[in-house]
Amino acid sequence: MAIIEPKVLKGFRDFLPAQEIQKRDLSAKIEDSFRSFGFVPIDTPALEYTQILLGKAGGETEKQVYRFEDNGGRDVALRFDLTVPFARFLAEHRAQLALPFKRYHIAKVWRGENTQKGRYREFTQCDFDIVGSTGAAADFEILLMIAKTLRSIGITAGSIHLNHRGLFNRFLESIGALDHSAAILRTVDKLSKIGREQTAALLEEFLSSEKAAQVLAFIEAGTGPAGTLSFEETLSRLEEAVGGPCPQSIHLRTLHSFMLDAFPHDAGGMRQECLVLDPSITRGLDYYTGVVFETFLSELPAIGSICSGGRYDNLVGLYSKESLSGVGSSIGLDRLIAALESLDKLPQKSTYAQAAIVCVDEQNGGKYQALASRFRERGLRIEVVLDAKALPKQFMAAEKSGIPYCIIPDREPATLKLRDLKKRETIEGLSFEDVYSIIKK
Amino acid sequence: MAIIEPKVLKGFRDFLPAQEIQKRDLSAKIEDSFRSFGFVPIDTPALEYTQILLGKAGGETEKQVYRFEDNGGRDVALRFDLTVPFARFLAEHRAQLALPFKRYHIAKVWRGENTQKGRYREFTQCDFDIVGSTGAAADFEILLMIAKTLRSIGITAGSIHLNHRGLFNRFLESIGALDHSAAILRTVDKLSKIGREQTAALLEEFLSSEKAAQVLAFIEAGTGPAGTLSFEETLSRLEEAVGGPCPQSIHLRTLHSFMLDAFPHDAGGMRQECLVLDPSITRGLDYYTGVVFETFLSELPAIGSICSGGRYDNLVGLYSKESLSGVGSSIGLDRLIAALESLDKLPQKSTYAQAAIVCVDEQNGGKYQALASRFRERGLRIEVVLDAKALPKQFMAAEKSGIPYCIIPDREPATLKLRDLKKRETIEGLSFEDVYSIIKK
Repeated sequence: MAIIEPKVLKGFRDFLPAQEIQKRDLSAKIEDSFRSFGFVPIDTPALEYTQILLGKAGGETEKQVYRFEDNGGRDVALRFDLTVPFARFLAEHRAQLALPFKRYHIAKVWRGENTQKGRYREFTQCDFDIVGSTGAAADFEILLMIAKTLRSIGITAGSIHLNHRGLFNRFLESIGALDHSAAILRTVDKLSKIGREQTAALLEEFLSSEKAAQVLAFIEAGTGPAGTLSFEETLSRLEEAVGGPCPQSIHLRTLHSFMLDAFPHDAGGMRQECLVLDPSITRGLDYYTGVVFETFLSELPAIGSICSGGRYDNLVGLYSKESLSGVGSSIGLDRLIAALESLDKLPQKSTYAQAAIVCVDEQNGGKYQALASRFRERGLRIEVVLDAKALPKQFMAAEKSGIPYCIIPDREPATLKLRDLKKRETIEGLSFEDVYSIIKK
Repeated sequence: MAIIEPKVLKGFRDFLPAQEIQKRDLSAKIEDSFRSFGFVPIDTPALEYTQILLGKAGGETEKQVYRFEDNGGRDVALRFDLTVPFARFLAEHRAQLALPFKRYHIAKVWRGENTQKGRYREFTQCDFDIVGSTGAAADFEILLMIAKTLRSIGITAGSIHLNHRGLFNRFLESIGALDHSAAILRTVDKLSKIGREQTAALLEEFLSSEKAAQVLAFIEAGTGPAGTLSFEETLSRLEEAVGGPCPQSIHLRTLHSFMLDAFPHDAGGMRQECLVLDPSITRGLDYYTGVVFETFLSELPAIGSICSGGRYDNLVGLYSKESLSGVGSSIGLDRLIAALESLDKLPQKSTYAQAAIVCVDEQNGGKYQALASRFRERGLRIEVVLDAKALPKQFMAAEKSGIPYCIIPDREPATLKLRDLKKRETIEGLSFEDVYSIIKK
């Protein structure tokens, strides 16, 4: 029979045990953090009607989606994010859900992206949202959950940059430039790459030079001569630009006061200065309607935002006449793994086993399992070696897969030997309890 | 804008929080059991080359698979099981894997099955296999892991029925009927439905009446006048039928001795009588080459096997010239959930939160989160209510989602009130530690 070459599709990948353990452990930590805030999990199908998934999207997304006709002639597609299915889910199950609804969803999504950028076509997203609460408290909870979750996985130095789409719109309206909103966003997004002068020149192609200067001043309101300004200072400058306090600026001020109340003295997990009011955050402003934010890792600025999000005022509009406002965010798990790896903050292991029972005589396979069962019932994870090879070979195999101890059943069943693979020493004449205590430690 | 009707595809479904919590908790318990045996996780892509997935399959599978051409013109398909991708994985990464390789894989698979039978087109499988160890110890470990895993999720009464494809083949050869193997399997599979006489008549369409009687006697060797025979008795009858002890019968005898050694007195989790030698197990015999087994739940015989499997002698033959033998099994998570639900053994909850901090004044949103953070840092899962409504309404909402306690921050920040939603009583003047202790309990 001809051999089929074993290979995965371009942009897809296998996870070997060491990688899958990393992914599962990291995902479990993130999930624990979400649960500690009382968020609940949901799940939706990988495959949906294309009309539902693409109703809102266009252009790039449409080209990237895995779309086909199923055996029943339906036009279907693999989900390309977890937000669109969530909107459909909300509309479909609205009657069964109590508001505000705080949910998370950790699952894979698929996009036929250009793989040359080191991107994958299958990747895992961790989405979390609060739907049905419009106040600053909901926005703050999402920001706090981001900070706490990142801290729980070892990222302690970083900040969340915050902007408000509604405030920006109000500003554009006040200078009579709201019609050019999309072009302005596209242009100022290039500021850090092409510099101030060129940006101004581009803006002046469709704005008066006075308005162009006003736009740049607004975008740069967070920066003073000595660097980033405080939240309070930046907010005052923005308020001035829009002609005084307004609902959006009051919303931001409330959010900031929550931050001050919650962490007067850097009390664990989120420092006051980690929340930066940054009017230059333009990404995503296109579809968000309220706050919008991105994370910056101080130790790894090049990686970009690993957790962005914001507020949509009309999340389910495509599928329902009811209006539901939601604020949420998403962690790209694969990108996060890459970030943690380059920070050397990702534990490497290729086994969960805490000890292996070696095989001295294959006839005793049942007895080895009986011994293992006793340890397992005490909560230990014990591998049983199945085939009798020379003991040094068995030790080497265990060590190679990262197991710290080998248990050697003696002829006399009441005593055991324990091989410490790190210290390369064997302790003899141990009782079951002795061995349990050593491994447990 | 026209509204798109929010609905999932036929045969697909959403998991609302209560259902998703069930699924995640059950999956976590199963995974804990796998890990306690030292098994390691892997992951593979949902989408693969169709040639790889369908190389071995044919007929029914080919019709059920979700297959299409991707944007790059590749013939691709969604995996319909986790065994074929595992075989491809083994062939592709053989150089990086130490044998024996004990892995588990919990993931979704897709089949465009007829949904009228109450089957889903997207479902979760929990596969576990040992590859590269051919002895009875590997077979026994898989059987033990099944028994322990089922026990860990509350299924204590049941048995595993075991057969050996090699022994059956040896028997067929001994009576000169090996050529009719497939037809014989198809026919005797109907035994329980159509009865002994009709089965004999069908067998006699291609076998002599003497041979037909021999086949029936072999298949029924596990049953005596008083019901199921012991493993030992059945094995003796089978050995007699094949002309005395042979490698396959010795393998089964070793396996049984492991069982006796491991559990001389029903020592936790697997009783001797739970392993039944049953030559009538024909399902799967078609593609397995060694042992084959199915589970029977005493409390729920109608549900059928929720965990079947066996040994393949040439797992990776389609993708590699190397021969690798594997023994493994698979738990269908969705079917298991249905079984546990009908046994009333599945805890129902729709939240992980242990308490909610109610919202007395929306201005205090930051302080509520600060208080919640203190509890969360002590390991509690605390929801914060975001919007100020009448307290009874907040209590009712918490109770409805299954949260047992509400924490009411007093004006004086040093003391708290705690509402016990079950007892419907409020305790006043509590310290942080008091509240922590009550909730923790």
